[in-house]
Amino acid sequence: MKRENAIVGQSGGPTAAINATLAGIIAGVRESGAFGTLYGAYNGVEGMLSERFCDLNGKVSQSDLALLRNTPAAALGSCRLKLAGGEQYDRLFALFDKLDIGSFFYIGGNDSMDTVAQLSAEAEKRHSPVRFIGVPKTIDNDLILTDHTPGYGSAAKFVATTLREIRRDCAVYTKPAVTVVEIMGRDSGWLTAAAALTDVDGLYLPERVFDTGVFLADVKQALARHPDVLIAVSEGIRDKEGSYIGAAGHKGLDIFGHVNLSGAGKALELFVKEQLGVKVRSVELSVLQRCAAHIASETDLNEGEAVGRAAVRAALEGKSGVMAAIIRTGDAPYTAEITTVDAAKVANQAKVIPDEWINERGNGVNEACVRYIRPLIVGEPALEYEDGLPKQFVLPRG
Amino acid sequence: MKRENAIVGQSGGPTAAINATLAGIIAGVRESGAFGTLYGAYNGVEGMLSERFCDLNGKVSQSDLALLRNTPAAALGSCRLKLAGGEQYDRLFALFDKLDIGSFFYIGGNDSMDTVAQLSAEAEKRHSPVRFIGVPKTIDNDLILTDHTPGYGSAAKFVATTLREIRRDCAVYTKPAVTVVEIMGRDSGWLTAAAALTDVDGLYLPERVFDTGVFLADVKQALARHPDVLIAVSEGIRDKEGSYIGAAGHKGLDIFGHVNLSGAGKALELFVKEQLGVKVRSVELSVLQRCAAHIASETDLNEGEAVGRAAVRAALEGKSGVMAAIIRTGDAPYTAEITTVDAAKVANQAKVIPDEWINERGNGVNEACVRYIRPLIVGEPALEYEDGLPKQFVLPRG
Repeated sequence: MKRENAIVGQSGGPTAAINATLAGIIAGVRESGAFGTLYGAYNGVEGMLSERFCDLNGKVSQSDLALLRNTPAAALGSCRLKLAGGEQYDRLFALFDKLDIGSFFYIGGNDSMDTVAQLSAEAEKRHSPVRFIGVPKTIDNDLILTDHTPGYGSAAKFVATTLREIRRDCAVYTKPAVTVVEIMGRDSGWLTAAAALTDVDGLYLPERVFDTGVFLADVKQALARHPDVLIAVSEGIRDKEGSYIGAAGHKGLDIFGHVNLSGAGKALELFVKEQLGVKVRSVELSVLQRCAAHIASETDLNEGEAVGRAAVRAALEGKSGVMAAIIRTGDAPYTAEITTVDAAKVANQAKVIPDEWINERGNGVNEACVRYIRPLIVGEPALEYEDGLPKQFVLPRG
Repeated sequence: MKRENAIVGQSGGPTAAINATLAGIIAGVRESGAFGTLYGAYNGVEGMLSERFCDLNGKVSQSDLALLRNTPAAALGSCRLKLAGGEQYDRLFALFDKLDIGSFFYIGGNDSMDTVAQLSAEAEKRHSPVRFIGVPKTIDNDLILTDHTPGYGSAAKFVATTLREIRRDCAVYTKPAVTVVEIMGRDSGWLTAAAALTDVDGLYLPERVFDTGVFLADVKQALARHPDVLIAVSEGIRDKEGSYIGAAGHKGLDIFGHVNLSGAGKALELFVKEQLGVKVRSVELSVLQRCAAHIASETDLNEGEAVGRAAVRAALEGKSGVMAAIIRTGDAPYTAEITTVDAAKVANQAKVIPDEWINERGNGVNEACVRYIRPLIVGEPALEYEDGLPKQFVLPRG
């Protein structure tokens, strides 16, 4: 009996765990013995539309899997394409037919879950047998119906580790000085909240309107306690009109006289300098938050793999239009199970930090939030180093 | 017989290895059995002038030493004070008398070696028995008469590891995009040269005049090869008039209408956008370069400890006005020995990358340079983690 084939793609922004999920899918498919060829789609649906794919059996050996798991960013490449339906659907379903695809695994965020839901509905209309399974990933942790998303724990571990190290760097001089660290997450403060795992003097989330008066009072109060003040701020903080701090309404000119949109961290640096006249610096953790695999969370990588394997099981059970999701079953010790949820319900929704986890002043999160985040950063992967650098698995460009 | 006491201070910018050196001095002093009390000076000579110090025996237990070794930044605090002589010398030597100090260990860069040389000369004038021993540290690697400086290897490992991870992040999309990573080192390109341990498309050093024409041609050529271009640039690059790129002559206004000195990375980001119209981003590795102890080099920490112990031996041998220095005795396998050199010769000098290690076009370094850097980043310290975060040793504020 000819066994059906499967195809897997990665989508959206990279994380330190998205390849762990790819490794989980590859391992799950191989161990099941229930599939023929497992294809990898280069650059997600974008690559599928131009028939750019590879046979993963030939590209990733069993011994490559451990390295793939610990390599950051999307090994297959990624895309940000939202399907427009019509002719694009025709091309995709033609490709599924041509390759004899029975299962399509799509690792991504809420846009990708929209793709999964749409394609699953389209398959039903077309009486296509293809099953569509979403697998969550995002450092932003903003998907609903899953306790958290793979990729978040590693990013949170990088953020907390780095803040703890910067705290030591702040403490060396006696002169009053403020350090503002800008953290990713335009619409949700989950990553910024990871700062609460270490001892920052305040953290400011996009979930609350940013009040310059409160912020300034906080900084002054902290400076009265000790000279080395450390502040964590989300890139997504907005004023009461909804304008990003550092962007609209805070425009400067760049070196060519163009409008230069500085980030929230830089804006607060200049604001503190202006208002308090103390030494101040800002640090953007930037893209390192999503690719610092050298300080990945083992819990996160394990769960990244586990959702990949769960997606394979879901396909074998005949499910479609679902997303593998994590259910937390215990905090101390931390335990979790994997299930599947309706991808359509996840699509285009965003999960923010619950109100009751943010303090009244809006400059911190409470112990319940810390209890939620802490187990997700636990554990250090056994990385393989070569000449002092972590080894990576690189899939040749498609 | 009453044994003489010793005092140790840390100075200049923090590194990931400066506490390894402190741990080496504490261990060396204890193991020698030749000293009475080992005092720690808070904030280097600045704290000594206001008599802020502690008894390190009471503050750092034997079991704390391993944790101290792996904690970034200066546990005793640091300063940037250059002594002015006269009354300051009087106060310092009065303190030495009061505390019965026979040996003063000063961990720092070339300014600190100046302090060591000056105080040693002053001691001779005053017929003071105090011996002054310098111990090198700086992420910049710009001290002469030592093969390299503790602190550099860990910073270089962070830079190379991070660039390798950013390279993966760059590779996920198909659209042409340029990423410019700005690296510390105002006057020497040693840290930027560590980018050569990974596969960047070009690196630009302060040792060479920055030519925008060459840079632009390099970026264009790289974009013709692949869509994901990764550039490393020193914060210290200057034009042929000697003005920093991004600073003088490249002024913009900040959000309050003030002059905003953007860094080299940001300046090149805007330049590439202006000239080529491609997607471009810049990343500043910033203060993480000097405090990312979680990715420290074990070779570096070992050598940091070893120069600390060597300083203690030098004091016991009656030396003064010297700096512990590293002599490389082999490249493959890497071997090194510790010696002492004249601190006065190190003071106020700076070591830059030799001309013959930089390629003709000024956008890269050769294999000899890579061979020099590579062994310094090798090895991973066995870090102790608690709840997913590296444990630190924190000395209570003095």
